[in-house]
Amino acid sequence: MITVFAEASRRHEPPGFVVAGRIRPSPERPERIDLLMEGVRAVGATLVEPPPVTLAEAALVHDARYLAFLETLVERWGRQPDAAAYPIPNIHALGRPGLPPASYPESVIGQVGWHLGDGSAPILPDTLPAALGAAASALHGATLVLGGETLVYALSRPPGHHASADMAAGFCYLNNSALAAEALTRAGRRTAILDVDVHHGNGTEAIFYDRADVLTVSLHVDPARFYPFFWGYAAETGAGAGEGFNLNLPLPRGTGDAAYLEALGLALDRVRAFAPDVLVLAAGLDAAADDPFQGFALSQGGFEAIGRAVRALGVPVLAVQEGGYPSPTLGLNLAALLSGLGA
Amino acid sequence: MITVFAEASRRHEPPGFVVAGRIRPSPERPERIDLLMEGVRAVGATLVEPPPVTLAEAALVHDARYLAFLETLVERWGRQPDAAAYPIPNIHALGRPGLPPASYPESVIGQVGWHLGDGSAPILPDTLPAALGAAASALHGATLVLGGETLVYALSRPPGHHASADMAAGFCYLNNSALAAEALTRAGRRTAILDVDVHHGNGTEAIFYDRADVLTVSLHVDPARFYPFFWGYAAETGAGAGEGFNLNLPLPRGTGDAAYLEALGLALDRVRAFAPDVLVLAAGLDAAADDPFQGFALSQGGFEAIGRAVRALGVPVLAVQEGGYPSPTLGLNLAALLSGLGA
Repeated sequence: MITVFAEASRRHEPPGFVVAGRIRPSPERPERIDLLMEGVRAVGATLVEPPPVTLAEAALVHDARYLAFLETLVERWGRQPDAAAYPIPNIHALGRPGLPPASYPESVIGQVGWHLGDGSAPILPDTLPAALGAAASALHGATLVLGGETLVYALSRPPGHHASADMAAGFCYLNNSALAAEALTRAGRRTAILDVDVHHGNGTEAIFYDRADVLTVSLHVDPARFYPFFWGYAAETGAGAGEGFNLNLPLPRGTGDAAYLEALGLALDRVRAFAPDVLVLAAGLDAAADDPFQGFALSQGGFEAIGRAVRALGVPVLAVQEGGYPSPTLGLNLAALLSGLGA
Repeated sequence: MITVFAEASRRHEPPGFVVAGRIRPSPERPERIDLLMEGVRAVGATLVEPPPVTLAEAALVHDARYLAFLETLVERWGRQPDAAAYPIPNIHALGRPGLPPASYPESVIGQVGWHLGDGSAPILPDTLPAALGAAASALHGATLVLGGETLVYALSRPPGHHASADMAAGFCYLNNSALAAEALTRAGRRTAILDVDVHHGNGTEAIFYDRADVLTVSLHVDPARFYPFFWGYAAETGAGAGEGFNLNLPLPRGTGDAAYLEALGLALDRVRAFAPDVLVLAAGLDAAADDPFQGFALSQGGFEAIGRAVRALGVPVLAVQEGGYPSPTLGLNLAALLSGLGA
């Protein structure tokens, strides 16, 4: 099994994120890489550095305006008088039925409120290089699958599944899983994305929401009381041509192996009905019982069972790292998942 | 001339607001009241305390869900572990074409992101009583106009024009001007709102955006580089039945008396064409040359000229205080405006 990892992914060191109105240390730290590498070594994977990608390649799933924002933000923010070290949005382009349509402002303060969906996506000088590294890993993983590999793991960091076409959020900047899925789709492979991160993959859902050619399925903690709060409900089934091609399976907080694997069965039934040529597994590991976010209570055996169930689909699998935060079992859970997948 | 003022308006003491990622002292302080009272005394107005109003009365223009949020927030926020002293939204229900529709969460953290449009609307135990005082002043002002007064000034504080049906923002919680306009409308008076605050009255615009029975007109700094950034553009002309019943006149930063009064002429032409029975003047005073927000450069004479031009409409005027922040001329500018209005 090949593991793709870009050294540039180490560079991003987010100082904090906003929790209940306070700035706290971020768990999405470079140390995650070392813990995940323990899992990679445990299954004896071959490590590959991907060829670099540019922001232009991220246009596969991201808007040009958002990419221009990411490219120029650090310099523009630095010119703001008395600004904080990194942007925290202080005005939000909230939109919903009943509000006049929002327009895109010229001000960097306004654009920060447009493109940052929350206070969990600090952007510093090394953020973009690291995010491009994460995207490069996922895209090279797709290339390897197109070349005939049946199982590839992309150690993409920072993660991607909360990033939509024009929005960073939840530790995510570029949507690595979506980039890989889009590259596979454009190469003629019918692609499904299964997201097992403990949080709903709202960015991935948004990117493919009106499309029937990429199936998106997510198992996650019920968002009524869990991040990302506003999306991830069962009623979100897709729109237009994409109606019926998004499946959300919200589960109660604290769900353990048995109930989780039952829901996973439903998710995989939907994937089978879609009959994909390839599966992108958005492989968050924060459903673990000892993850700091305390959403689900999966065991190491649970992760191995997820891997086995996905392997039983009988299609090539590209596993793209999403969340999963420092805990004693993070590497063990990755090894268990990859082992179940056939590594 | 009668000035309506509720003592409860003094109670709200916002500790700060977020500017470029940092929390700074808020200029929307109780001291504003004393400075404005100097202006009131200068024109010799009669001071009246309004009868109290309840949150239920705010349902004239606000959603029940938002009012329930305001009523319960302080207690619910206090139960969050390790929460900051007051809510700063850390996740925002950004919505726009291309995102799946957002759902309303149960979590107070999620609801804060739904109902707070920015980091400038801190809610503390005394916020709601003060906001109800501000609403009471505006609503009693409407009652006095219905009783035959031709000029009433409501010293409403905190201000209201950035608050929409379900969102607090920009120092605003309940939309005082909109409440007064709605009360006048329901009493059979054809009502126009003219907003001369330096910031676009995006909450007021949103509340009446799809209605033809209340005209909304706002002069303000071009939002492309000025708060509220996402709304206040000339293209926002109303929707559905309200098409043509919202007029935005964005002007360059630094605009002085002459250019301002020219634009005011256009605004008043539109008001005249609407032929209202009564005008609600959303009387922000932050267009002053020495206002801390440094948006426009109006002189005391400019404010008097605004008053005279509005008086020339020949209809009863209810002036409702919006923004305008501590400066040496705040009271003088209010006196000039009221004097121009005929006080």
